[in-house]
Amino acid sequence: MELKNIVLIGSGNLATNLAIAFHKIGINISCIYSRNEAHARQLAQKVNAPSTNQLKEIPWIADLYLIAVSDAAIHQVVAELSDCKGLFAHTSGSIDVSVFADIVSDYGVFYPLMNFSATTVMDFENIPLCIEANTDENQKALEILAHLLSNKVQFLNSSDRKIVHLAAVFACNFTNMNYIIAEEILSQNNISFDLLRPLMLETATKAQHNSPRLLQTGPAMREDIPVIEAHLNLLKSNPAYKEIYTLMTENIQQLKHENKKL
Amino acid sequence: MELKNIVLIGSGNLATNLAIAFHKIGINISCIYSRNEAHARQLAQKVNAPSTNQLKEIPWIADLYLIAVSDAAIHQVVAELSDCKGLFAHTSGSIDVSVFADIVSDYGVFYPLMNFSATTVMDFENIPLCIEANTDENQKALEILAHLLSNKVQFLNSSDRKIVHLAAVFACNFTNMNYIIAEEILSQNNISFDLLRPLMLETATKAQHNSPRLLQTGPAMREDIPVIEAHLNLLKSNPAYKEIYTLMTENIQQLKHENKKL
Repeated sequence: MELKNIVLIGSGNLATNLAIAFHKIGINISCIYSRNEAHARQLAQKVNAPSTNQLKEIPWIADLYLIAVSDAAIHQVVAELSDCKGLFAHTSGSIDVSVFADIVSDYGVFYPLMNFSATTVMDFENIPLCIEANTDENQKALEILAHLLSNKVQFLNSSDRKIVHLAAVFACNFTNMNYIIAEEILSQNNISFDLLRPLMLETATKAQHNSPRLLQTGPAMREDIPVIEAHLNLLKSNPAYKEIYTLMTENIQQLKHENKKL
Repeated sequence: MELKNIVLIGSGNLATNLAIAFHKIGINISCIYSRNEAHARQLAQKVNAPSTNQLKEIPWIADLYLIAVSDAAIHQVVAELSDCKGLFAHTSGSIDVSVFADIVSDYGVFYPLMNFSATTVMDFENIPLCIEANTDENQKALEILAHLLSNKVQFLNSSDRKIVHLAAVFACNFTNMNYIIAEEILSQNNISFDLLRPLMLETATKAQHNSPRLLQTGPAMREDIPVIEAHLNLLKSNPAYKEIYTLMTENIQQLKHENKKL
């Protein structure tokens, strides 16, 4: 079954990017719902869709009800739409597909593995779309839709999706925190963060085609004790960052010893 | 003074990238020295230069002796070249410029802020080159040379350079370690690391034009306790990674509270 008309629940960063991506490939969005009327209307105008902040105004038949709201709100929204006829899918990395069970009969997950902002409209072509559904037919329907947007469609059950989400926290959320720490260290010394930006991009670019295990460099990997000690000394007025430095350094050294054993 | 002919000491990743970059813009490399004769010869062939593994065969006059060897070897190499006439510069992020003092009279630092590999030849145009020297004249000479290679030339004294190096350890070495952890978590569950690669690249790309402080997302930033607890539970068989998760999460939450106070 082809999912030709979509009701979109939500108007945040992910909902915005999904709405624009669907609109661009000619998929009809028959309604955008948000509790915040202005947000719903603003997004709806961008994609020529009706909008509402009234649950009772949502069409009660659609091919797909796509739930792009915060994790905590998913269950309640679905419960309130339980009379609607159509396939339901949420877009969350960490909510089990079973959130739909006992409420609706056709359901799944449509999880784009990306960090969206409202201001940047992203091309979905290279964004992995992780799909899961309660029946083969529903899965097939979500798969066809996903392939219209992206070249990277992946089936993931709920427990694997949670693993991917955990890995993304390390690779992306903690990485951004490292950027924040670096920016702060530089700014305390009136040095521009611009100096580091090319190296940050290169670090991510190198890992696009290689295992990061083959790319680890730096004083911890070289076991360069004088440099490590000098760094810890520079961090002495910041115990929290010193603790992170020590812990990451220990883990990199551990990795080096594992590699030696291989 | 224009630095028209360069003696390059070293044949590692950085030396290789520097030699090729100089050769490309027509700067003469009058000799490449490496303790390893084969390495010196291989690199020298790429850039039409003579090579040697004998210190006594190094030309005793040159415009620039560029010391691209490991941190630990710099002092000894310079001492062995103390009779040579010319400007000396090393290429290290963490070695003080004073390593040259009392050995040679004209010296400085020529530090490209990048992670080089021998297999990838990098374009220096966007690589920050951090310059320092013992006199204005020597600094000017290094600056002119640096501008031939890069649009991003920056004066940094030794203590600021060490700060930049420390920040780079957070933003790049620790980031790569986070990639390694993510890859390991996925591989233990037979999930392809490819799923995360677009998000990793996007995380670095977003930080090219924004402060990472404005980009922090994820369960720690949302203070999403159920997801954090689920993640810690998934990590229970790996105490080292659980410790990193806890520490980074605490620091991100701390950041959130600081932002609230602003």
